[in-house]
Amino acid sequence: MKTTSDQIIHAKWIITCEAKDEVLENHALVIQHQKIIDILPSPDASKQYSATKEEHYDSHAICPGFINTHTHVPMNYFRGLADDLALMNWLQNHIWPAEKKWLGEEFVFDASLFAMAEMIRSGTTSFNDMFFYMPSTAKATEIAGLRGHISMHVISFETKWAKDAEEEFAKAEAFYQEYKNSPLVSITVAAHSMYTVTDDKYLLRLNDIAEKYHLQMNMHVQEPRTEMDILLKRTGRRPLAHLAHLGLLNPRLIAVHMLHADENDLDLLEKHKPNVVHCPESNMKLASGLCPVTELLARGVNVALGTDGAASNNDLDMLGEMRTAAFLAKHSTQNPESLSAYEALQMATLNGAKALNVHHERGSLKKGKLADFIAINMDEIETLPTYHPISHIVYAAGRHQVTDVWVGGKKLLDNRKLTTLDEAELKAKAKAWGDKINQ
Amino acid sequence: MKTTSDQIIHAKWIITCEAKDEVLENHALVIQHQKIIDILPSPDASKQYSATKEEHYDSHAICPGFINTHTHVPMNYFRGLADDLALMNWLQNHIWPAEKKWLGEEFVFDASLFAMAEMIRSGTTSFNDMFFYMPSTAKATEIAGLRGHISMHVISFETKWAKDAEEEFAKAEAFYQEYKNSPLVSITVAAHSMYTVTDDKYLLRLNDIAEKYHLQMNMHVQEPRTEMDILLKRTGRRPLAHLAHLGLLNPRLIAVHMLHADENDLDLLEKHKPNVVHCPESNMKLASGLCPVTELLARGVNVALGTDGAASNNDLDMLGEMRTAAFLAKHSTQNPESLSAYEALQMATLNGAKALNVHHERGSLKKGKLADFIAINMDEIETLPTYHPISHIVYAAGRHQVTDVWVGGKKLLDNRKLTTLDEAELKAKAKAWGDKINQ
Repeated sequence: MKTTSDQIIHAKWIITCEAKDEVLENHALVIQHQKIIDILPSPDASKQYSATKEEHYDSHAICPGFINTHTHVPMNYFRGLADDLALMNWLQNHIWPAEKKWLGEEFVFDASLFAMAEMIRSGTTSFNDMFFYMPSTAKATEIAGLRGHISMHVISFETKWAKDAEEEFAKAEAFYQEYKNSPLVSITVAAHSMYTVTDDKYLLRLNDIAEKYHLQMNMHVQEPRTEMDILLKRTGRRPLAHLAHLGLLNPRLIAVHMLHADENDLDLLEKHKPNVVHCPESNMKLASGLCPVTELLARGVNVALGTDGAASNNDLDMLGEMRTAAFLAKHSTQNPESLSAYEALQMATLNGAKALNVHHERGSLKKGKLADFIAINMDEIETLPTYHPISHIVYAAGRHQVTDVWVGGKKLLDNRKLTTLDEAELKAKAKAWGDKINQ
Repeated sequence: MKTTSDQIIHAKWIITCEAKDEVLENHALVIQHQKIIDILPSPDASKQYSATKEEHYDSHAICPGFINTHTHVPMNYFRGLADDLALMNWLQNHIWPAEKKWLGEEFVFDASLFAMAEMIRSGTTSFNDMFFYMPSTAKATEIAGLRGHISMHVISFETKWAKDAEEEFAKAEAFYQEYKNSPLVSITVAAHSMYTVTDDKYLLRLNDIAEKYHLQMNMHVQEPRTEMDILLKRTGRRPLAHLAHLGLLNPRLIAVHMLHADENDLDLLEKHKPNVVHCPESNMKLASGLCPVTELLARGVNVALGTDGAASNNDLDMLGEMRTAAFLAKHSTQNPESLSAYEALQMATLNGAKALNVHHERGSLKKGKLADFIAINMDEIETLPTYHPISHIVYAAGRHQVTDVWVGGKKLLDNRKLTTLDEAELKAKAKAWGDKINQ
């Protein structure tokens, strides 16, 4: 007598991200109620389970959906607006003025929905966002069907979103109350950085909220070189050391970028175990500096992967980000054994889930976890012959080879077609916004 | 009265690579007898020229076809066979044994033809190859319709291809005689490197051939760190200095990789003006070292771009290579203004043509040059809005967005379909070879 299930999905290769280099050949995922209830050899699956739907991915590798652990999705409309510029010039003279002029509920909603399409089309199933007008991004997330971690974000200077701290915190609280029970939106807190949020009380107030509601806390930490000087001057401590001093350096912290680490920083990270998000393409493109990924992993620090916003990357492509992370780690350590393909894939999946504190239900493929996974077609000129599918995912495949994307067992991408979003409409809106911004 | 032409190709954007950041909007290329005979605004083109064929690329950027200035195309069948290993370990324990076991005319022909498909599908119209069994690669090149620069390659140790120097030179000469008048195949000479070719007379003999036939000369120069020690021990000079001493450092030389440059190396490069080929992805993946691209360009050295072989990259994707080159230059100089998108595109096109000494007829779009160009569709979620098409080509577009590829006005890729090659047959052969190699 067969056990009932919703779906059986057979694949040539299943990469679980549960054990180093593990690739299960000709296995099947059995799905019920949004979760994986079994992973077993394909012939056994068909014998043991009945299913409403059964699919075969005969030339595909299935792996966990990517978790983009740091991004600013509404910036997708600013992609390619300004390139080849220094960080503070880029921020102060291009990005912040563009934001000041264009930001609003409609812009953020449209740009977020547009970014969701790019994420789905490149195999991302969860993302961790830091921006303003959070309810607009949250609304887009629910429509798209992705899992979005969206921050109650404070920056402590006047924006179109909020005129002062009181308004920022009030709006953040309102956002939390509105979305705290959403099946797809999770809430975090975020302070932009130690160099923008200059008031320690402000940070502690944010930390109180994180503690009260058990939320992860995001912050850009040690990104521009000037940040070190600013913090030293203000506090007598480097940014990471000052975070430790304030009691904010702990596994709840998602420290984004984490460049320019000195020996004391490395010791602090090893001791207090915050999560680090590595954004190699943004760091390289803006020449911000280097995150010592290999050293951090060796010290047992959890390092996840993020694309940063599309304005500084210029994409939300986690496949490309894994490749760059592996290249950069090898280059910077002068050791080609640094950051193997498997380690890069783990950063893009399970380590992201750990950073977001959702690894009990996401980030790898195993019984009981959510059915968030993707199929990558290897039957292309660019990925044949296929000796090691993990190598091809990291070093050779393009994002257009992601054919199908499931979140909670529901397909958001079906043989390259978006199921929850209207591609033509998204493109038309992007062009219309682009024309306005260009003028 | 209209002037007759073979084709008029209208495009939303034409990027000529003739002047910095030049983008011609709503212009047309007029083609006759394999050449560009005019570039002018679209409405004028239709008024001034009649054409057998007229096409419209309303959402595309047309730019010169990419020139992959260093690769080993038959290695495509070894892609992903061994990764995350040190260069000499990778070569000595994986690549060279695999070559020893599998190399032969049939392997090289099949693998080359397979690589041609990848190059066409990613917008490469010319490539510069260094391998053995050159006639097999040349034959594949003519079938594919690409422009291949294929080297008379000597390595001075016994291979399956040639047992000794006399056989190497005899086979090289025979190859030259067979292909010297080919419309698509151009011939170069190549010595593998200063650390493998240990006999100076051997290099001088090769140089004599290059001088006699007016050919460019390829060599891997200063790639592994051990190369410096080996040359210092043998000659008392570093590799580049020894090349200068032998009289081989001149604009005929294509110095591939060119890592670990010291001040004297930089002076030699500036003084003697050989061409340098930057292969950033291979250098990063193998952790070989850094080519000082920004410094070389500032000193007036011609720097072209190459993917290296697919076994160390792991692709032949010049779009990805441009992006990595720009990222790496910014990162390594700590200056985000280093290597702009336009400079990266120029390295991938005109600078390659200069290195191969074919810039009078290739590498940019202008009257009188060959009609070698590509169309990239910007009407995708990932490249909208399109503020600056050059930025999107380098920082955002994927190779699957290359829709059409022309060599001498002939389409090799027509709306993503290969016209000279059978995709299904190529994939079947790649799988069959992969199965054999895997055993």
